[in-house]
Amino acid sequence: MAARGRPRASGPSTSGLTTEQDILVAAGRLFCTEGYGSTSTYAIARAAGISQATMYHYFAGKHEILLALLLETVRPSVEYAEQLAASPEPPTDRLRKLVAYDARLLASGEENLGSLYLLPELGDERFAPFHAERQRLFETYRELVAACQGSSLEDAHPAASLVLGLVESLILRRRNEPHMLEDDIATRIADAALRIVQA
Amino acid sequence: MAARGRPRASGPSTSGLTTEQDILVAAGRLFCTEGYGSTSTYAIARAAGISQATMYHYFAGKHEILLALLLETVRPSVEYAEQLAASPEPPTDRLRKLVAYDARLLASGEENLGSLYLLPELGDERFAPFHAERQRLFETYRELVAACQGSSLEDAHPAASLVLGLVESLILRRRNEPHMLEDDIATRIADAALRIVQA
Repeated sequence: MAARGRPRASGPSTSGLTTEQDILVAAGRLFCTEGYGSTSTYAIARAAGISQATMYHYFAGKHEILLALLLETVRPSVEYAEQLAASPEPPTDRLRKLVAYDARLLASGEENLGSLYLLPELGDERFAPFHAERQRLFETYRELVAACQGSSLEDAHPAASLVLGLVESLILRRRNEPHMLEDDIATRIADAALRIVQA
Repeated sequence: MAARGRPRASGPSTSGLTTEQDILVAAGRLFCTEGYGSTSTYAIARAAGISQATMYHYFAGKHEILLALLLETVRPSVEYAEQLAASPEPPTDRLRKLVAYDARLLASGEENLGSLYLLPELGDERFAPFHAERQRLFETYRELVAACQGSSLEDAHPAASLVLGLVESLILRRRNEPHMLEDDIATRIADAALRIVQA
């Protein structure tokens, strides 16, 4: 991402967001409604109310915008997991909190950004930072599951995969239940995760 | 879908499949590797080894091919669920079998066709038959969960959503674990589903 702070091409933002955020919001909406492949950088700039030149000042291309959006779907949970790791609470309480937090993150936001996880384009190495961050999130799940089960990290692998899968299944559910209640579902998923983990 | 049996434009299939199946295999591969939006009917016909005219004899357009592929990911499970409904086995055994069958279906096949569930294009009413079939599958899950819990269909709704979510989470997992063992994972998912359901 390039340096920030350059003025907008067509006057100040009317959204109250920074230009960078305007670009991300506009691109997220277009990627999720029109499709990533069908969205041009021109369409993104127009929807964000800026020129293409201004857009390229913030992002080197469409792939960098997609990467930034993908990172937004995992980074907050990784940071929250790191806070939890320093907490004296029992591991089951921490796992419950992480699952509920992560579920709320995926269920919230105007667009279902998690639906971008399945784009074929994500095989490109330019998205390696996203895959690395998601792997880091998986590792925090695995450590918590191992602590809950009193097992090795290796033995905790299958249950941790099931738990993260259950959380990420919200991405698929949002399609069919666009009005699902985030808090309600986050609590149910956390309960189910604990049942899976507790042998 | 148009009537079948018309000869191929460029000689017999070398795959041993029918022309219709050749089209579905070629399209599934392109949709999952290049993206649905980026795949032309010309590219599909070429990959299937036929002319576009022959392709249009079988399918009215790209959307009809996508619909057929989507139906392949749910119809076998709906049919299996209907067989199970007639079985005298206890509901927990039937739920375990349905989950394992459905998980194996989503985990198998050369392409991860479930990844097409998240295409923005699926909001189009031409895909209503797929959504109806998936809803039918959900209802069979709900009936089995209600039977397992001895609860009403309404009360079984949340647990049934979690169970189907867990099964469909395989779609997301296939991206990160392309070499996962189908049988192993199907059994684990079935075990986890039973834990979620058994209060």
